[in-house]
Amino acid sequence: MLAIAERINGMFSNVKKAIIKRDPVPIQDLARRQAEAGASFIDLNVGTAVADQVEAMRWLVEVTQEATKTPLSIDSQKLEVVKAGLEAAKTPALINSCKGQPEDLEIYVPLALKYNASLICLTMDKRGIPQDIDGRVEIAANIVSAAVEHGLEPSRLFIDPVLFPINVDQKQPGYMLEVFRQIRYISDPPPHINVGLSNLSQGTKERSLVNRTFLTMAIAAGLDSAVMDVLDKDLMYAAICAEMLMNKQIYSDSFLKVVRS
Amino acid sequence: MLAIAERINGMFSNVKKAIIKRDPVPIQDLARRQAEAGASFIDLNVGTAVADQVEAMRWLVEVTQEATKTPLSIDSQKLEVVKAGLEAAKTPALINSCKGQPEDLEIYVPLALKYNASLICLTMDKRGIPQDIDGRVEIAANIVSAAVEHGLEPSRLFIDPVLFPINVDQKQPGYMLEVFRQIRYISDPPPHINVGLSNLSQGTKERSLVNRTFLTMAIAAGLDSAVMDVLDKDLMYAAICAEMLMNKQIYSDSFLKVVRS
Repeated sequence: MLAIAERINGMFSNVKKAIIKRDPVPIQDLARRQAEAGASFIDLNVGTAVADQVEAMRWLVEVTQEATKTPLSIDSQKLEVVKAGLEAAKTPALINSCKGQPEDLEIYVPLALKYNASLICLTMDKRGIPQDIDGRVEIAANIVSAAVEHGLEPSRLFIDPVLFPINVDQKQPGYMLEVFRQIRYISDPPPHINVGLSNLSQGTKERSLVNRTFLTMAIAAGLDSAVMDVLDKDLMYAAICAEMLMNKQIYSDSFLKVVRS
Repeated sequence: MLAIAERINGMFSNVKKAIIKRDPVPIQDLARRQAEAGASFIDLNVGTAVADQVEAMRWLVEVTQEATKTPLSIDSQKLEVVKAGLEAAKTPALINSCKGQPEDLEIYVPLALKYNASLICLTMDKRGIPQDIDGRVEIAANIVSAAVEHGLEPSRLFIDPVLFPINVDQKQPGYMLEVFRQIRYISDPPPHINVGLSNLSQGTKERSLVNRTFLTMAIAAGLDSAVMDVLDKDLMYAAICAEMLMNKQIYSDSFLKVVRS
């Protein structure tokens, strides 16, 4: 699966401080450690507390690229911040994220094409995020249609059905597994299926256990990408083991040592 | 889910020794610890190295019952050993196991009814265990039919599709998840779905990780029973968490402390 490393995010105080002081050391340390842990993309989010987010994103991309060749995920709700990140990225990046409504797709899909980027699209529109299975799958199908129309291959499209915290609605994880199963059949080849995993355990006391348990269940249902804490070793081991059990990584006695690509 | 505690088995040398010497201490210690760990049934298997298996099973049932009130699972391939165990058991037990072929079902289903017991039936017949999904589901359907015909309720029937070691055939775990999903639709209410979990990791170096990863994926696919190592805390936590995520146990901050029934 594709592990999008979540830790370089301005909502963490050490990252926020580093961004404000333009201190590359903590950022580059996190970038290197996450790359070594097996990140497929390093997510960069300047947070909301920084004054000039466009300039901050540009700086973040530059210092991260000095530390690692791992592709970047440009994470912002602001179009101009995303553009600045894509502009500064030397290798094809991932856009995290756009909403699944036509007016947003009209902007972000061409943007992804222009920068040879991949794109995470959330199953949400003007009315918000559907709470049920059908509503999410319907928006997912609309996203895939819009992407195909513009010529964005499914391999560069990541559908994210938006995972809620378990303490908000306990029916949601089961619904999500069914959503994953159904999204796989929207197109052939299917788009990637992504979640922001840590959302699930927001405010709970067993975060790592909740995250890794759901991740393995989700991989069995077709999930193949997650924004997640790649520095959580138990989480990464669970993911590798789940993929091995689904016959997506070859079993050997040392299957945990497989180099992640 | 129902956790059938596997540790009182003559294949373990300390248990074998205790059975031969008729020393109740190690047995009763294991019985208590497994009951405290949340076992729904305590499996009793005298192993194959003991001389008088019938007498050994009777003794095993008696000493275990002195230590715990947790129901017992009488585990033997020999009919007379199973009968001795059922005879000695004070509370309704589980028979582990019979094959899914008509001539065996004709004996074991009435036996379960006679002793008010539950029954694990393996999806295997004279030709062996089908390696594919359809073959297993077909035998499962035959088992359910035979049980219903005799008047054994689905709640007392455990279908076991027989889990192979991962290092034997890596396609099997994925097949098994599909088998679980399909067995759920054979009857309404469905039978229990069981596996001998530790089989999966036989001969591997990451037994606990492999076991708990598969168990969570299996719970998401409908598995609700396993013969397993209830003394493996990580495994039990994973099972509890998976059930909570599937909305089968209520979430609270201390969901791991939920008393298992």
